Amino acid sequence: MDPRVREHAAVLVDWSARVEAGDDVVLSVGPDAHELAVAVAEKLGERGANLLATYDSGDLTRAYQRAHDGDFEESTHELALYEAADVYLSIGGARNTSATADVPGETRQAYRSAHQDVRETRYDTRWVSTVHPTRSLAQQANMAYEAYRDFAYDAILRDWESLADEMAKLKERLDAGSEVRLVGPGTDLTMAIEGRTAVNSAASVAYDSHNLPSGEVFTAPYAADGEVTFDVPMTIQDQPVRDVTLRFEDGEVVDYDAEQGESVIADVLDTDEGARRLGELGIGMNRGIDRFTDSILFDEKMGDTVHLALGRAYDACLPDGESGTESAVHVDMITDVSEGSRLEVDDDVVQRNGTFQWEDGFGE
Amino acid sequence: MDPRVREHAAVLVDWSARVEAGDDVVLSVGPDAHELAVAVAEKLGERGANLLATYDSGDLTRAYQRAHDGDFEESTHELALYEAADVYLSIGGARNTSATADVPGETRQAYRSAHQDVRETRYDTRWVSTVHPTRSLAQQANMAYEAYRDFAYDAILRDWESLADEMAKLKERLDAGSEVRLVGPGTDLTMAIEGRTAVNSAASVAYDSHNLPSGEVFTAPYAADGEVTFDVPMTIQDQPVRDVTLRFEDGEVVDYDAEQGESVIADVLDTDEGARRLGELGIGMNRGIDRFTDSILFDEKMGDTVHLALGRAYDACLPDGESGTESAVHVDMITDVSEGSRLEVDDDVVQRNGTFQWEDGFGE
Repeated sequence: MDPRVREHAAVLVDWSARVEAGDDVVLSVGPDAHELAVAVAEKLGERGANLLATYDSGDLTRAYQRAHDGDFEESTHELALYEAADVYLSIGGARNTSATADVPGETRQAYRSAHQDVRETRYDTRWVSTVHPTRSLAQQANMAYEAYRDFAYDAILRDWESLADEMAKLKERLDAGSEVRLVGPGTDLTMAIEGRTAVNSAASVAYDSHNLPSGEVFTAPYAADGEVTFDVPMTIQDQPVRDVTLRFEDGEVVDYDAEQGESVIADVLDTDEGARRLGELGIGMNRGIDRFTDSILFDEKMGDTVHLALGRAYDACLPDGESGTESAVHVDMITDVSEGSRLEVDDDVVQRNGTFQWEDGFGE
Repeated sequence: MDPRVREHAAVLVDWSARVEAGDDVVLSVGPDAHELAVAVAEKLGERGANLLATYDSGDLTRAYQRAHDGDFEESTHELALYEAADVYLSIGGARNTSATADVPGETRQAYRSAHQDVRETRYDTRWVSTVHPTRSLAQQANMAYEAYRDFAYDAILRDWESLADEMAKLKERLDAGSEVRLVGPGTDLTMAIEGRTAVNSAASVAYDSHNLPSGEVFTAPYAADGEVTFDVPMTIQDQPVRDVTLRFEDGEVVDYDAEQGESVIADVLDTDEGARRLGELGIGMNRGIDRFTDSILFDEKMGDTVHLALGRAYDACLPDGESGTESAVHVDMITDVSEGSRLEVDDDVVQRNGTFQWEDGFGE
């Protein structure tokens, strides 16, 4: 076993999920994530946690959803599982990242809507999502397998404490601010952030951060106005999507177009009311990620990028008792801010062309 | 996909587990059972059942159990899952049937003991165990893969209703009887069956039968006295076991030996008090199974065989409110009755050299 697989498992279990003796852990395993699953199982055994492994296969999902009449119910047993669980670790590892590409959009959305409580309950655990670097992800990234493994472990095996210290500077600015403005090619968007709390997403539940890798600072904006263009190519619901432009008025999408995948965006926007509002503004700060690989887990964390999500906001960004955008979806889209771009908080430029104010001293 | 995979899935879901719309189904998937799992997922979708797939990997089990300090706890989340489930379908499909061979016996037993409630709760669902014919099972059977697939589907894809009618004849004899005597080379054992109910194990929960394939009639004997030799080679807890002889007095094992694997038998007997008593007497009647393949699921159902299990008795054989042998284990061992053997119920010979009384008319 590549020693980095065991290091990945250790970061996931200890740094990310803070697993302790007696924790009831659900480990979701993709078909090609077997090797990492074995290393995680070993680590969970060492920690004295209780392990139940679930099987997350696109082939099963496709077969099940296509055969179903579409009138999906809540899974009471799945709900009971997550209600009793302390920790949920998802290690993605598809054999084919397009395995569910021919499931009709409305079927997926019906399934997602019926399972909203299941997802919410999972989010109430100490949950962490990661992926095992598979051949399918290498292919999606247009990279050789060995090179992709190097890429993935560079992103995952970081000095997370040191990155958390750096990200704290941006969190401080966002927490103190009322309004964010993002300007760039095809983009001029203002969003309110007053009263919202930014998350220093350092790949650990201790930081309200649930992705490994992470390395972003995100908050829950509202009252978006203006236009934004997402120029980073992506795969959304197994479909390629390119150059999406969204126009917002009073916080809601009023117009949209896309060079490719416009019908996917239409499906997303039609899910529910929350799917037409923003749930997240995130600023990528993981400079271990040096290229786009058509995987949201990595792309949205990359330095020199900013992303926005349609749909559900994360509770960690909201004041106690206040709800942000609620939706069955949370769909991220990314814009490259390395050139001709700036991010302002209350009229102060905090980032220009990917460089932060405290790195370069501009505007001081 | 081999059309027999879909037929197997249909038998499992419809005949065996009687799945209906709205059922909460847990589908346990072995790493090499993916193909059957996809076919089962499709069938569950058609039926409108709710699906949660779990991952049953010997590699994970080994890594987890070896790393653990051995002081295992009950998994509360796993218990909650099965308490809420209606149906549990296990489709075995190991890549290596010896994957857990180097987990110490006491570690396995400690894990099993801590998970007894989980297992009991699973047994309260409409549970069915089957296997996908894998290369590892072919190897264990000392057969080529394609030939093994033919063997497995011959055993699984039977006319179960017609076999159920035939097996009803033996059930009737056992239900009416008080004592069974099994005589053969190295074997002369009497067991009480008074008050116990035999199960016509026709591979369906509608018959209190939970294995696919099945094709046996079994009951829960007690007060065993005498000696029995199991001459069918087997793998128990990943270890080869051969020619085990057990000597019973007053229902309990008082002496034992084995040509091979004696320490495995010792481990089993040491589990708890119930592990030294019989939990099952089964008579194989599936003549689609034409050879021993070192897999208990198939071997114990073969025509011309009788098997006994140490440990736990099945509730279906017991009068309401009465408990039979209770144990964390249920370990089957098999004897070939094709030559020099007879099975008597209350001094009537019911089977001689594998042939039943109603087939041949002997003793009438």
